Amino acid sequence: MQQQEEKALGKQSFLFGRGVYVGGMASVAGKLESEGPLGAYFDITSGDDMFGGKTWEEAESNMQLSAAKAAIDDAGLKADDIRYMAGGDLLGQLIATTFGVEKLAIPLMGLYGACSTMGEALLAGAVLVDGGYAKHTLTITSSHFAGAEKQFRFPLAYGNQRPMAATWTVTGSGAVVLSDERKKYRVRLYGATMGRVIDYGVKDSMNMGACMAPAACDTIYQHLKDFSRKPEDYDRIVTGDLGVVGKEILIALLQEKGYDITKQHMDCGIEIYDASTQKTDAGGSGCGCSAVTLTGYLLKKISEGALKRVLFVPTGALLSTVSFNEGNSVPGIAHAIVLEHCGD
Amino acid sequence: MQQQEEKALGKQSFLFGRGVYVGGMASVAGKLESEGPLGAYFDITSGDDMFGGKTWEEAESNMQLSAAKAAIDDAGLKADDIRYMAGGDLLGQLIATTFGVEKLAIPLMGLYGACSTMGEALLAGAVLVDGGYAKHTLTITSSHFAGAEKQFRFPLAYGNQRPMAATWTVTGSGAVVLSDERKKYRVRLYGATMGRVIDYGVKDSMNMGACMAPAACDTIYQHLKDFSRKPEDYDRIVTGDLGVVGKEILIALLQEKGYDITKQHMDCGIEIYDASTQKTDAGGSGCGCSAVTLTGYLLKKISEGALKRVLFVPTGALLSTVSFNEGNSVPGIAHAIVLEHCGD
Repeated sequence: MQQQEEKALGKQSFLFGRGVYVGGMASVAGKLESEGPLGAYFDITSGDDMFGGKTWEEAESNMQLSAAKAAIDDAGLKADDIRYMAGGDLLGQLIATTFGVEKLAIPLMGLYGACSTMGEALLAGAVLVDGGYAKHTLTITSSHFAGAEKQFRFPLAYGNQRPMAATWTVTGSGAVVLSDERKKYRVRLYGATMGRVIDYGVKDSMNMGACMAPAACDTIYQHLKDFSRKPEDYDRIVTGDLGVVGKEILIALLQEKGYDITKQHMDCGIEIYDASTQKTDAGGSGCGCSAVTLTGYLLKKISEGALKRVLFVPTGALLSTVSFNEGNSVPGIAHAIVLEHCGD
Repeated sequence: MQQQEEKALGKQSFLFGRGVYVGGMASVAGKLESEGPLGAYFDITSGDDMFGGKTWEEAESNMQLSAAKAAIDDAGLKADDIRYMAGGDLLGQLIATTFGVEKLAIPLMGLYGACSTMGEALLAGAVLVDGGYAKHTLTITSSHFAGAEKQFRFPLAYGNQRPMAATWTVTGSGAVVLSDERKKYRVRLYGATMGRVIDYGVKDSMNMGACMAPAACDTIYQHLKDFSRKPEDYDRIVTGDLGVVGKEILIALLQEKGYDITKQHMDCGIEIYDASTQKTDAGGSGCGCSAVTLTGYLLKKISEGALKRVLFVPTGALLSTVSFNEGNSVPGIAHAIVLEHCGD
C-alpha cells in the first residue's frame, strides 16, 4: 500500500501539480492605509476604522466579512460554492475570524501563524484544491491597529512612546478565492514551502523585524534549495512585515548563506506606508499588511503580467503577552508561496 | 484545465482515497487524569503538573514536546522523517505549541479550533499525506488546567466557585504520526467532515457543553448525510468535551433531525474523570481531553479490533476573554474524522 510523495520537493516544499488558480480577491483597508502609497489599489476603504462595529474586534470581524464577500463575488461565486475556508487573525483564539465569517456558514480551518497567516492560509487552501478535496476554497486574514495594540501592547489612551524599530499594525483584511480552473485572473499557485519555527532568542517585542528576519531567511533559503532556484528566478521575493530593520537583517543573513536578494526583495511593511509622512516607524505589520498588499497590489500585477513570478513569504512573530511577560523570546515563522503569471 | 473534486463527498466531507494510517501515537497526562478511569492507558504521566517547567505555559510546552517525541519514536521514526506537523492549543497565539515543538525543527501548520484542534490537526495532517505532499506528518495538541484557568477564567488562588455545568480543563497532550503505509497499528483514516462555526447565541462560558453541542450536532448530521450512513454504521461516535450537560443537548438535537445516537455516543469529557470522586463538575474539557482519550484509549482499541469504526468528533468553544467580556456569544465548531480498523 506504499504511496509516493509525488508532490513533495526537497525538504520542506511541494508542488501544486494539477493547477491552483486565483479565482477572486478582495482587499479591505483602513484610513491610514488608504492614504498610503498603495491606497488607490485597495478595493474597499473606510474613513472610519470602526467599520460599522461597536468594538475594535467587531470592526476587524466586519472587515473580514466584507473581504470574504467581495472576494467570493469577484470570483463570480456564492458562499455556497466555497467548499472550505482557511484563515485566522492575530487576536487570542482567532475571534476576529470566528465572529467575522460565521455568517457565511462555510466549513472553517482556523489557522494561526501570526503575520504569516496569509501564507499559511494560501498553502492550506491550495492543498485542498490541488489535492482534489475542493473546487473552490476561500483564504483570508486580517488585523486591526487598535485591536492589536489592545491585545499586545498598551491601551491607546495611554499614549506610550514607540521605539523606532516598532512597526504599525495594518488595519486591513485580504481574501483570495482559490479555484481548480483559471477564470478572470492569470495567476497560478505553483508550489509552496512550509516554514519552521525559528528562534534566535530575540526578546524585544518592539523589534519584531529582528525576530522574524531569521525565519524569513530560513524559509527563503530552503525554498531556493528545494526548488533548485536562484533569487533571479523571481521578479520579486516579498516578505510580509519585516520593516526597515528586519529587511537589512534578512538581506545580510541570506548573503551569509550565499544568496543576494537585494534586487528582488520587497517588504509589504515598507511599501504600505510613506515613512516620511505617516509616522509609522519601521513600517507596517500585522496579518493584514501582507494580505492587503497581496490582494490589492501584487496579484493584480501578476495577473497583468507586469510581474511574472513572485515568491510571497509572509512572516510571523510568535508571541503573546503571556509568553513575553514570562521573559520568553519571540520566535518567528514564515511560509512561502510561488505565484506565477499564466495563461497567455 | 478543469479538475475533478474526486475526493469530495456531499457538502462538507471528503475521503482519504489513497490511505492514511496511524504510524505512531503518544499520550501525556497530568496527575488528576492519571488517577481517573483512563489513567492506566496513558503512555506518560506525571505526579507533578509542572512537567519540569517554571510556568504553567512551559509545563504545557514540555508536555507537547514529550508527546511529539514519544509519538515519533513509537512510529520508529526520527524528527527528520516527519515532513510537516499540524497542531495548536488553547492559549492566545498558540504559545504552548510554538515553544513546545520549536526544538523539533519540523515545518509547522499552526491551527486553532479550540478543543476541536485534535480533529482539525488530523484532518490537515491526513490531507497532506493523502494528497501526496508528505510521507509522514505529526498531528498534536494539548491543554493544561492551570494555564487555561489563567487564560480564560480566574486566578487559581482566588478559589472561585464553579457552577455544575462547568468543565475541568484536562492537563494532557496527545500526538499522532500519520503515514502513507500501514506499520504497527491497524488504524486507517478513511475520511473527514470539516465543521462550520455554529452560533446558537449561548453566552455562558461556564456552560461550554451547551455552546458546543449545536456544532457537534451540525457536523455529525452533515457527516451522516454526506457519507449516506446511519449511526449504527459506527461502533462509537465520540465527541470531545461536551460533558454531561452537552451530551443531553446533542442527543436531543440529533433526535429532532431523525438520528438517535444514544447507543453509539461517547464523550471524552465524561470518560476521562470519575465524576463521583474527582469533583470535576460536568466533565473534562480542553484540547488535551479528546487528544489523550484518542491516543491513550481509542486508537489502541481500534487497532486491536475491539472497535471497528469510530467517528471522532472533537468539539471546540470559540471564545476569548475579550469576546466574552464584550458580551459576545460563544460559538462552537466540530470536525469529524472516520477511524477504521484495517489490515486483518
